[in-house]
Amino acid sequence: MTLPVALLQHACGDDLAANLAHSAALIRKAAAGGAKLIVLQELHRSRYFCQTEDTAIFDLAETIPGPSTELLGALAKELKVVIVSSLFEKRAAGLYHNTAVVLDADGSIAGKYRKMHIPDDPGFYEKFYFTPGDLGFEPIDTAVGRLGVLVCWDQWFPEAARLMAMAGAQLLIYPTAIGWDPRDSSDEQERQRQAWVISQRAHAVANGLPVLSCNRIGHEPDPSGGPGTLFWGTSFVAGPQGELLAEANTQDETILTAEVDLARSEAVRRIWPYLRDRRIDAYGDLLRRYRD
Amino acid sequence: MTLPVALLQHACGDDLAANLAHSAALIRKAAAGGAKLIVLQELHRSRYFCQTEDTAIFDLAETIPGPSTELLGALAKELKVVIVSSLFEKRAAGLYHNTAVVLDADGSIAGKYRKMHIPDDPGFYEKFYFTPGDLGFEPIDTAVGRLGVLVCWDQWFPEAARLMAMAGAQLLIYPTAIGWDPRDSSDEQERQRQAWVISQRAHAVANGLPVLSCNRIGHEPDPSGGPGTLFWGTSFVAGPQGELLAEANTQDETILTAEVDLARSEAVRRIWPYLRDRRIDAYGDLLRRYRD
Repeated sequence: MTLPVALLQHACGDDLAANLAHSAALIRKAAAGGAKLIVLQELHRSRYFCQTEDTAIFDLAETIPGPSTELLGALAKELKVVIVSSLFEKRAAGLYHNTAVVLDADGSIAGKYRKMHIPDDPGFYEKFYFTPGDLGFEPIDTAVGRLGVLVCWDQWFPEAARLMAMAGAQLLIYPTAIGWDPRDSSDEQERQRQAWVISQRAHAVANGLPVLSCNRIGHEPDPSGGPGTLFWGTSFVAGPQGELLAEANTQDETILTAEVDLARSEAVRRIWPYLRDRRIDAYGDLLRRYRD
Repeated sequence: MTLPVALLQHACGDDLAANLAHSAALIRKAAAGGAKLIVLQELHRSRYFCQTEDTAIFDLAETIPGPSTELLGALAKELKVVIVSSLFEKRAAGLYHNTAVVLDADGSIAGKYRKMHIPDDPGFYEKFYFTPGDLGFEPIDTAVGRLGVLVCWDQWFPEAARLMAMAGAQLLIYPTAIGWDPRDSSDEQERQRQAWVISQRAHAVANGLPVLSCNRIGHEPDPSGGPGTLFWGTSFVAGPQGELLAEANTQDETILTAEVDLARSEAVRRIWPYLRDRRIDAYGDLLRRYRD
């Protein structure tokens, strides 16, 4: 028995209501196509607003539960699907998170994950907006299985994937917003995109479970006058040996579908039993900043 | 300034002296070609003997220092190169390790690494032969830099790569002996080979440093009557974004050369500063067997 999944890769504009309505329309299409688990991009309700630091942008944040989880929860219940959403969470005045929320097939909030690793580099000023998550690396139980939901920058940290797998996650799921600086050479751009794919496929390999990664497309201008960011799409689904089951291209709106065989993870792990052989007696220094 | 490296991919036969002589001949060729760092395959002195469990095979083990390090040390000194060797170490009666030894350019033993993660699956009965390493994940300082030497099965563990990087390793180096069960389908074989490549390229990405992996080629029969193992070669050198700098094919003897720019690691880590953002406050469970 396989799990039909769909990843919704699309561009976002300035109109928040229009973005959410577009996501909802794609969710309906994906559900009509048979998907039972539907993954949205990181911060799908808005442009990727971290290209600049502007206190007015905190107005975009909302509570969880809040308007978006109300709408998506109702949709999940109506369509009997599990939805992985990604929101700008307002927890308190001056306290905001980059938070993934999972709506269960009965419309309830199955759980949330607050992005633990927060990037900060030119065009991605996330440390200004997002307080690092304080919920840890805890999978979320749903009608379709135990989901290891992480967010974007977490992709680059094998530790996050490992901790989710060790807590019984059956799938790793990454809502993402990543793209190119148009000033970089095409060689550099391709190295970056491939590194991003390899890094996540390797989490599938190292942990013997499928990985779903959903990224946006389109060029988004930089309000501070820079060249903006060209989001590279490339949403994909990998199986537990890291093999690609489905992959979108870099520029087209795509409902990316795949059938994920959750039972295959156990078969793979029986012959590649990394959990058996981890040298936990010698890993202590992983809790240090640097071994100097 | 770049570091010229060479990986020696070749088949091994039953005659130990002939194998070592062949390695020595390839080392001379590689050095004549300008290589300053030369990497040998895992257990290059013999067939991959772990296809069966046989107490007589312990006769193949040798001490470190011992005959092989004498020969390779002399060669390293003569050619002014650093050599990464992989030996079956006899430490005491009944105590053996799968050990990488680094011969420095002055002929001395720069250091050794005892394989920490030991596999055991049909055709790879290493837990019978090799006591798990007790030297930890410590890089080895040499004339060409600080080397993060790991061995084969370690490839599948992001923890090992991370610990080496955190201790200042400038390169990760994997002597390897991995191949196919001829009974597996070609699809399964290709998934395995790709998983192996991806896993190691991802260590380069996650840690912002080059990775060198050297594997053997050729079919080796199973003394216990099984189908044997077909070693898949595919030795490669990846840069600090995981990009392939050089890659050998699956069947040809190859002196695989590349110019590795060690300074590029710092440039890559400045823009992908994963060491900055690791959530060491939330990684405690990495020291557990499972989070149950």
